[in-house]
Amino acid sequence: MSLHAVILAGGSGTRFWPLSRSNRPKQFLPLVTEKTLIAETFLRVEPLCPAERIWVVCGQEHAALVRAELPRLPDAHLIVEPAARNTAPAIGLASLRVGREDPDATLLVLPSDHHVKDPAGFRAGLELAARACQGGDLLTIGIRPTRPETGYGYLRVGPRRADGAYAVDAFVEKPDAATAARYLQEGGYLWNGGIFVFRAAAILDALGRHLPAVHAGLEKDFAALASISIDYGVMEPESQTTRRIALVSGDFGWSDVGSFAALPDVRALDDKGNAVSGDVVTIDCDGCVVLSEGKRLVAAVGLSDLCIIDAGDALLVVPRDRAQDVRAVVDALRASGRTDKL
Amino acid sequence: MSLHAVILAGGSGTRFWPLSRSNRPKQFLPLVTEKTLIAETFLRVEPLCPAERIWVVCGQEHAALVRAELPRLPDAHLIVEPAARNTAPAIGLASLRVGREDPDATLLVLPSDHHVKDPAGFRAGLELAARACQGGDLLTIGIRPTRPETGYGYLRVGPRRADGAYAVDAFVEKPDAATAARYLQEGGYLWNGGIFVFRAAAILDALGRHLPAVHAGLEKDFAALASISIDYGVMEPESQTTRRIALVSGDFGWSDVGSFAALPDVRALDDKGNAVSGDVVTIDCDGCVVLSEGKRLVAAVGLSDLCIIDAGDALLVVPRDRAQDVRAVVDALRASGRTDKL
Repeated sequence: MSLHAVILAGGSGTRFWPLSRSNRPKQFLPLVTEKTLIAETFLRVEPLCPAERIWVVCGQEHAALVRAELPRLPDAHLIVEPAARNTAPAIGLASLRVGREDPDATLLVLPSDHHVKDPAGFRAGLELAARACQGGDLLTIGIRPTRPETGYGYLRVGPRRADGAYAVDAFVEKPDAATAARYLQEGGYLWNGGIFVFRAAAILDALGRHLPAVHAGLEKDFAALASISIDYGVMEPESQTTRRIALVSGDFGWSDVGSFAALPDVRALDDKGNAVSGDVVTIDCDGCVVLSEGKRLVAAVGLSDLCIIDAGDALLVVPRDRAQDVRAVVDALRASGRTDKL
Repeated sequence: MSLHAVILAGGSGTRFWPLSRSNRPKQFLPLVTEKTLIAETFLRVEPLCPAERIWVVCGQEHAALVRAELPRLPDAHLIVEPAARNTAPAIGLASLRVGREDPDATLLVLPSDHHVKDPAGFRAGLELAARACQGGDLLTIGIRPTRPETGYGYLRVGPRRADGAYAVDAFVEKPDAATAARYLQEGGYLWNGGIFVFRAAAILDALGRHLPAVHAGLEKDFAALASISIDYGVMEPESQTTRRIALVSGDFGWSDVGSFAALPDVRALDDKGNAVSGDVVTIDCDGCVVLSEGKRLVAAVGLSDLCIIDAGDALLVVPRDRAQDVRAVVDALRASGRTDKL
């Protein structure tokens, strides 16, 4: 097996505003440790796949950040997307490039902005998937749910295969709360974490069959391609036709670090359950996220489950259970033309 | 009547940290309008008592601030206390100085850090008190309670006098919650707002009788004087002996602006009841106090009854009902030697 890691770093979300800005999206933030999420991703896969076989896909505006964060990444392995077109075109482009350098390549496709508490277990899962994909199947990593999450797609688990992987019965859309609770109780459903393992040749073949226009345009007119995810555009239709889709299941302490509310799940906490960093004084606070980026002192008194994010020229205060609503602030700023703060 | 106003500006509280610092205490903050509380105090009394008969007592470290805030204050009317010794020595010193310039002076003694919504009504109350004190009585202004406040001393109201003032039956210590509720329900109790009206000669005479050491030391060794309030040291014992103590009662929309929690009572509010100033975006917030002093954007989402105070190199977040606990932060900073933030 010739393993190559492809780290997808084209994301540009707003859920970590004001820490994340358009010129520094989430993957370039040190949200869990003092290293950025993309640097942690690189280090996590490196024991399985040395630096000279790691690749990164990102937008032009973040290429310099990638080079700064990943000094060991080979220059030629930084793949700049001409435009952000979601994961199907990004993975297609990477598969072409890697396949040209190594026609036998097996790809470990990794989002750049996730956290994994058990990297050794995670690598073992990737290795299992890499072995299981050698015959041409497309593998994904299914994460065992730890809560009735409504923000993720799910994988319905099929029969176990001889190689230790499982068939995928179905890709399931994001469920409502009752359905998510049932999935958790019944078992047999895993989170779709957006992590894929396949041979470069196999994914290009599937891309050609399900998204021929995307496949044909990868190196011609990338910006004209449809914006479509690999799940929706390839994995799901493939699962309904050839059924050459499988999964490897695990827990790994995985988190997509979806918002400030998730930080207490992944960070070191004080004895009151607060996730704190920077120059912070908490008195009588519990379950809070208090981040101070600059030289300012943040004093928090008598608070529960509140996020206080002090980031340069902007400050956000929001309850943990409304952390998703930071989008409303971003929308309001955009609507009022205050793009200097975005 | 020869009215002189004496504005007491020697206070140095911590309840408005981080807006207030040791070099800029509460009276020098624009807490209610865009003018500082001391400037508002000056403007409030000026129609009754022109600038050339206004005086200010403050500490040496704040003399420059007073001059900057009150440009019309005569130079010779800035009385610098050699040390902070509470109101009895401060008022005694002012009475000596004013009495020397005008032996017939009647003093309107005003804290520099209160707010009054009805300044005309307030001035009418002061005028009534000034007339009532001409025979040598010591007058105080009693504020009609609007809530069962446990943070103030009270005045028990005695019989009405022919001049429109009332006798003071007793000075009552800060009550517990049940007692404060009873006072409010029964009536006959007023808040002691720390506002006094008397002839300079009369207060000096009473000071000589009740606090002879203070009286004797005012211009000799001020720093050696006991730290004692005019209420406790003079008004209360005088009320128990000569009974030449009286009050004028009113509402006036008075507030001592005791903490950040009080700001919604005195400031203009948005349509959700938030008191907001500076570069602030609120989404789905009510009853909050959000102050941004600098050039930073403060975004508040989904919050109720919370204070967010962004002040230069420090930020405070505290629920309104715990605003008094800012002292705990100040204590913690002092204990850890971080006096640069105080």
